[in-house]
Amino acid sequence: MADKFDLIVLGGGPGGYNAAERAAHEGMKTLVVEERALGGVCLNEGCIPTKTFLYSAKILDYANHGEKYGVTVTGASLDHAKVVDRKNKVVKTLVSGVAAKMKGAGVTVAEGRGVITGKSADGFTVECGGAVYTGSKLLICTGSEAVVPPVTGLREAVGTGLAVTNREILDIREIPKRIAVIGGGVIGLEMASYFNSVGSRVTVIEMMDKIAGPTDAEISKILQNNYAKKGIEFKLGAKVTEVSGKAGDGVVKYETAGKTETVGCDLILVSTGRRACTRDIGLETIGVLTERGAIKTDERCRTSVPGVWAAGDVNGKIMLAHTAYREGEVAVADMMGRPERVDYRSIPSVIYTNPEVGSVGETLESAKRAGIDAEEHTLSLRYSGRYVAENEGGDGIVKIIVGREHGNILGVHMIGSYASEIIYGAAAMVAREMRVGDVRRLVFPHPTVCEAIREAMFTIK
Amino acid sequence: MADKFDLIVLGGGPGGYNAAERAAHEGMKTLVVEERALGGVCLNEGCIPTKTFLYSAKILDYANHGEKYGVTVTGASLDHAKVVDRKNKVVKTLVSGVAAKMKGAGVTVAEGRGVITGKSADGFTVECGGAVYTGSKLLICTGSEAVVPPVTGLREAVGTGLAVTNREILDIREIPKRIAVIGGGVIGLEMASYFNSVGSRVTVIEMMDKIAGPTDAEISKILQNNYAKKGIEFKLGAKVTEVSGKAGDGVVKYETAGKTETVGCDLILVSTGRRACTRDIGLETIGVLTERGAIKTDERCRTSVPGVWAAGDVNGKIMLAHTAYREGEVAVADMMGRPERVDYRSIPSVIYTNPEVGSVGETLESAKRAGIDAEEHTLSLRYSGRYVAENEGGDGIVKIIVGREHGNILGVHMIGSYASEIIYGAAAMVAREMRVGDVRRLVFPHPTVCEAIREAMFTIK
Repeated sequence: MADKFDLIVLGGGPGGYNAAERAAHEGMKTLVVEERALGGVCLNEGCIPTKTFLYSAKILDYANHGEKYGVTVTGASLDHAKVVDRKNKVVKTLVSGVAAKMKGAGVTVAEGRGVITGKSADGFTVECGGAVYTGSKLLICTGSEAVVPPVTGLREAVGTGLAVTNREILDIREIPKRIAVIGGGVIGLEMASYFNSVGSRVTVIEMMDKIAGPTDAEISKILQNNYAKKGIEFKLGAKVTEVSGKAGDGVVKYETAGKTETVGCDLILVSTGRRACTRDIGLETIGVLTERGAIKTDERCRTSVPGVWAAGDVNGKIMLAHTAYREGEVAVADMMGRPERVDYRSIPSVIYTNPEVGSVGETLESAKRAGIDAEEHTLSLRYSGRYVAENEGGDGIVKIIVGREHGNILGVHMIGSYASEIIYGAAAMVAREMRVGDVRRLVFPHPTVCEAIREAMFTIK
Repeated sequence: MADKFDLIVLGGGPGGYNAAERAAHEGMKTLVVEERALGGVCLNEGCIPTKTFLYSAKILDYANHGEKYGVTVTGASLDHAKVVDRKNKVVKTLVSGVAAKMKGAGVTVAEGRGVITGKSADGFTVECGGAVYTGSKLLICTGSEAVVPPVTGLREAVGTGLAVTNREILDIREIPKRIAVIGGGVIGLEMASYFNSVGSRVTVIEMMDKIAGPTDAEISKILQNNYAKKGIEFKLGAKVTEVSGKAGDGVVKYETAGKTETVGCDLILVSTGRRACTRDIGLETIGVLTERGAIKTDERCRTSVPGVWAAGDVNGKIMLAHTAYREGEVAVADMMGRPERVDYRSIPSVIYTNPEVGSVGETLESAKRAGIDAEEHTLSLRYSGRYVAENEGGDGIVKIIVGREHGNILGVHMIGSYASEIIYGAAAMVAREMRVGDVRRLVFPHPTVCEAIREAMFTIK
């Protein structure tokens, strides 16, 4: 006899656990099936662990650069093993928190790999650890995993420990002397930032001619300059062709501008992208369509099969935890017959390096590509008294993208202190289709860095 | 012959210089008269200097408490004289910035005390340094000054240097061993926080039974507990009756619960409140009405005299620089015949202590007093993964005040990291009369502290 649920959620990451809680609050009898640990990649090997690392690095940076602010330190050192232990403690606390949340909401949690086996009269059937569950509705939140690209020697290097992905790098106990980061996107940059702060010699090898993926080009350049000053080497427009050697003595070969060059390293971080986890979970048994390996969903997170929704990285759209939260919520709302949709235009993103980068909405480039008549207005963060007070020699900026037809805010992009905590308000401006005049009429506290957003509105004629 | 202007702005603080720039951009020939230094109290002896101090203290705190985060620091020390020098440099940079802004906008600046002398056919007349200027319109932004209450011996103590106000304390070159802070409002607390961090023994004496003035009582208590743990002593419900002694050897006598007690101190900070500067500026020559010492203004910043507006502390409403900015802008808009008003319900406020406090809108208490049917919902910031990652043992909260009738956000109050940079977004929610459901549909970046605001919306049934 199968246990019967109103909703089975496959995967207990941000998309899954959050949706499960919301669904339970809506009165649905809900099951979450999780193979590894509640919280998913985000909590266990992504957002949270990296932020613990980066916070410790920030404290070290402060101690090492306090002189400019009148603070002298005779000796500052970071114990990486302690940082890892603390990371594990923080993760454990938060995973327990998610478990408690599930319990509190009355959500059942099944530990093990869940595989869809088909559909019966009672609903969709899911097998996990020998047990069979049925759910009238199904929400697939199986997430994503790091891609190891088909570079000669790279798969072997992962085997020997010369190369690691975002998962394994969080548990190394010693700081490598030299680290090569393949892929200069958000994950690569955050780890490059940490290891640079704690004393590794870091080289970032990126195929594109800029770092930080779709980030505004000017901001990406400022970020790169900041890190170049701190000693990170960047190899842009560089395609890795071969990896050889062993942990502690490796070589990355890459081609750039027609030449072949090499970088010696003790450790390689592979951060070239992520792939939706859609294999071997039984999608074919109920006919859920995928597209380029990811589950096809619409703005309500419906899949091709009625009664089946998908949320989070598995849809291959925007692989960010907060997108997953919202997608899961929209899916649950849709299950309850309420019309909601995911507003993909207004999803913020953050790079937690130092300086931080926060972005939301269109860049001038993406607006052009989309055929939107837009203009950009840039203000130095040195306009902000707080920024000047807290950043000797800071070169941060904020950039506003405005639609010419309606004067509405289409995008906000900034690099500088607190960008991570500021950008949500800008996301609200984009989501609520606020106009320049609307933001001018808001009152921002002084002295703050965020008030540069408001002042930028006054640079617009 | 008097120099003729479309607008004369009396006072070059945040209310004045900002309005002058906006007015010039609107095409008005504008004069700013400033007696001391452009930037006013905010830039020269308020917001900005204190933030330079507090940032240095923060770096020292980080260095001293890095152990929990895996960072060991030996011999961390702060050189207060260097901090003061740096403060002066930052202020100088920013004052020059304001001067450049005035020049860039084509605003004329007159240095000296401006006094209104009457009205001629050409407009209002203002004398400054022997010269006479006339302005068709007048904007009064003369700000406020610290009140030294009539306590026995206090005025004398200010004379001998035993007692100082917010102005003089920014230029002392040595850390006092013991400091008594009379008045536990924002200014008192920020300075108490700094001197506590840098090693003074700090006692805060407050007449009310709570610190931080109108701040939500629960948050005020959390703040007090945090500072009590760090060693600040609080004497609440304590009325100072006498001050005696000299710098380096003073005594503050106060009454509490019917008993008289004393605190020994090397320095006294008087931070009991501020008073609008309306004396000896010639208001009576044109008949501008005041009320309890402050200029009476309406929501458009009009005074009782047509053609005369007032903005900033001088109106005695909300003595915050960003209120002054907005009031000045509203006054200029009104001069140009555009209907705007200052939305006093949605003005955020911040206490830059560690932890920080950010507030906007109604508290449950103020809503009750105003006869609004409201409820409050509180969430621990430990909900936020970033907060947990960055705050060992943190006890921050966020509190949402919601109107029962419409489910709209009436207030947001928080204590914890980044509150200063987060609260502006909450102010936008209050200003734009967003409802709980509206905020739920917004996407906040993860992992951030700000996302606790969004999650708090989901604790509401």
